[in-house]
Amino acid sequence: MEKPFRIEILAVGSELLTPFFTDTNSLYLTEKLNDLGLDVSFKTIAGDDWDLLATAAADGLNRTDLLIVMGGLGPTRDDFTREVLAAVLGIKLEFKRDIYRTMEKRFKVRGMEMPHINKKQAYVFKGADILPNPNGTACGQWLDTGAHKIALLPGPPHEIKPMFDNFVLPRLAAYRTISASRLVLKITGMTESHIETLIEDLYPKDESVRLTILAKPGQIEIHLTGKSKNAQKAEEKVQKIGDLISRRLGENVFSTGGESLEEVVGTLLRVRKETLAAAESCTGGLLSHRLTNIPGSSDYFLMGAVTYSNSAKIALLDIPAQLIERHGAVSLPVASAMAEGIRKTAGADYGLGITGIAGPGGGTTAKPVGLVCIALAMSLGTEAESRIFLGPREKIKFQASQKALDMLRRRIQTSIPKDSKDTS
Amino acid sequence: MEKPFRIEILAVGSELLTPFFTDTNSLYLTEKLNDLGLDVSFKTIAGDDWDLLATAAADGLNRTDLLIVMGGLGPTRDDFTREVLAAVLGIKLEFKRDIYRTMEKRFKVRGMEMPHINKKQAYVFKGADILPNPNGTACGQWLDTGAHKIALLPGPPHEIKPMFDNFVLPRLAAYRTISASRLVLKITGMTESHIETLIEDLYPKDESVRLTILAKPGQIEIHLTGKSKNAQKAEEKVQKIGDLISRRLGENVFSTGGESLEEVVGTLLRVRKETLAAAESCTGGLLSHRLTNIPGSSDYFLMGAVTYSNSAKIALLDIPAQLIERHGAVSLPVASAMAEGIRKTAGADYGLGITGIAGPGGGTTAKPVGLVCIALAMSLGTEAESRIFLGPREKIKFQASQKALDMLRRRIQTSIPKDSKDTS
Repeated sequence: MEKPFRIEILAVGSELLTPFFTDTNSLYLTEKLNDLGLDVSFKTIAGDDWDLLATAAADGLNRTDLLIVMGGLGPTRDDFTREVLAAVLGIKLEFKRDIYRTMEKRFKVRGMEMPHINKKQAYVFKGADILPNPNGTACGQWLDTGAHKIALLPGPPHEIKPMFDNFVLPRLAAYRTISASRLVLKITGMTESHIETLIEDLYPKDESVRLTILAKPGQIEIHLTGKSKNAQKAEEKVQKIGDLISRRLGENVFSTGGESLEEVVGTLLRVRKETLAAAESCTGGLLSHRLTNIPGSSDYFLMGAVTYSNSAKIALLDIPAQLIERHGAVSLPVASAMAEGIRKTAGADYGLGITGIAGPGGGTTAKPVGLVCIALAMSLGTEAESRIFLGPREKIKFQASQKALDMLRRRIQTSIPKDSKDTS
Repeated sequence: MEKPFRIEILAVGSELLTPFFTDTNSLYLTEKLNDLGLDVSFKTIAGDDWDLLATAAADGLNRTDLLIVMGGLGPTRDDFTREVLAAVLGIKLEFKRDIYRTMEKRFKVRGMEMPHINKKQAYVFKGADILPNPNGTACGQWLDTGAHKIALLPGPPHEIKPMFDNFVLPRLAAYRTISASRLVLKITGMTESHIETLIEDLYPKDESVRLTILAKPGQIEIHLTGKSKNAQKAEEKVQKIGDLISRRLGENVFSTGGESLEEVVGTLLRVRKETLAAAESCTGGLLSHRLTNIPGSSDYFLMGAVTYSNSAKIALLDIPAQLIERHGAVSLPVASAMAEGIRKTAGADYGLGITGIAGPGGGTTAKPVGLVCIALAMSLGTEAESRIFLGPREKIKFQASQKALDMLRRRIQTSIPKDSKDTS
């Protein structure tokens, strides 16, 4: 077996050691590295402290082949990643007049004089490649010492991402020994263990394909990663298992291309030139918010009503007061009347109605916290379902909005004639 | 100076080295440690790989006084944190019959027989304290080797948090040399640099108080952390600077107790027994969603209308078609009419109206993407403002909802007689 190429991502910044910040740059870098078939062996965070950073850098160099260091390249006193790394590596820093000139120009364009503290940003490891930064003053560096490769990158996401894509990944392509391909199946209406039991015999025997089942709020995801020396083979491996699983799980799979459920519903409505309106009680606007997060959603999403109080249900949706009195605000008949009311007001093809108890207060033995009634009104009639969702208020709201979107998705998808579905 | 007590948090799990997961347990642990006056020196992530985990553990022990290891204590084949640490420390694992019995009981209660693979969870470092886990089968461990302290904890958040609070923090109280106190000021209507200029002379000269300014979407936060050997002094230090800054920034400070803007607005409405309704176009339900995330919001939030299309504005809010024709849907007059329309329909004390262009499409030179008109209708009359927000669609939506909440907050707060405000 080949010796693996080990990579460590070292994020530098005292704020990353507080309760308030997580490093998210490394997720982006990891995705790009994984696409090249390269794994990340360690991720480390060190603060703006010379000794501790030097220790982390030395340990990182000791245990990996490539050390990617992010952050601490700015002009202020607590930015000294460049200097610490030079000390740890025993390499000189050289002043580069052209970098200095480029920085001066950046300031001049904005009518400012460059503060003298920025001068240190023009120093580079002796022998390093300079990685240009069109989005900031801190240039990156790539150094190959023979024993190690070191990538020194700025911390701000809009600076590090293009620099990594344009100047680090091409240098790593040489170290890829394999190609990787990824496929994500998103699923509703099934539990993790239910899925696991159903697809047990489809688990890849081949070690080069990895299958992971992840439970996310309101959906389950199956992540497939395939590796091969040949890029096309990697894709075929993943696609083959993905197809088998998709067939097994049927219409419970709502996406194989990364789309969210609101995107899938939006695309279905757009293609069919149909429209939607929503009446929400316990979800409080979340369903409308999710639908309108999709650019262009105004083409199919006509209106939403957040009818929290009974009087709002009556005023905005023309729901008979006696219906609420007879069944209670959280009931299938009221959810149906909400869906039908908003559909009529909006003149939409579909109306969704949601009413429930998001908690933490307001529950009873007969109608506990988490009980949600959801209805879908359409020209064929109205269908309604009730569910009990567990968890805190925001989780109940999300799951209820997810279930409403999923009712619509399933209804539209099963109403498409089989033939037209196959050719779409 | 005393030798600092160095702490490393090592999170174990291959999923934490994928693009899909971040370690968030460490944020919780860090907050609790900081409250004891203890800083975190390093955070590291290693996967479920024996050699790499052993390397990370050895490096961690080498560079710190306390190594907190989380995850990999489960029953399956890729859970071997316990075994790796024992090997690295050169310490034997001992079988504990009472742990085994407790686990057996957990399964029995649920009518299940314990799988034999769980047996390894009953092994403990020789000489370690057992940390009970009422929420799972994996017990934690606390080991003091003299040279090092090691806390071995399970990965699931609902297991690690109570275990850390109840069994690790009390053991660390002995190592606290100082007390820490924290205060967070939340601010709207000012930029980071504006605030920095205004409070420059208030920056703590004293090294024992730390001031950090953080720019978050739609608000700026000032985090103050004070340290002292005496808990009361730490609090006084922070409170003193906090008061000076609050007075300087005036009504721009909306919270000093951690509350979100929607919580502050909710409390103001509740105290005054007043009610609110909202009509949203470009925010698409986000304002209603944020308001209804607060438990008990049904007491003051009466209804919301998501009137994305012109016909929805006309149907739900009675807005004259010619008003939209004359000024365009994104205009101060239409925002005002939306606020007034929803206030009237709901019979609320306040009505908020938001209309704008969230993008990425739909912008013109006269009305660019990010232009948002916001109106607040009340018994005194209606006020309206327009803003241009930058960023992607979701960020524009959030900033617009934030600005609307802030208009209401400022209006209510300035309408409270000065005397009653001072005593509240």
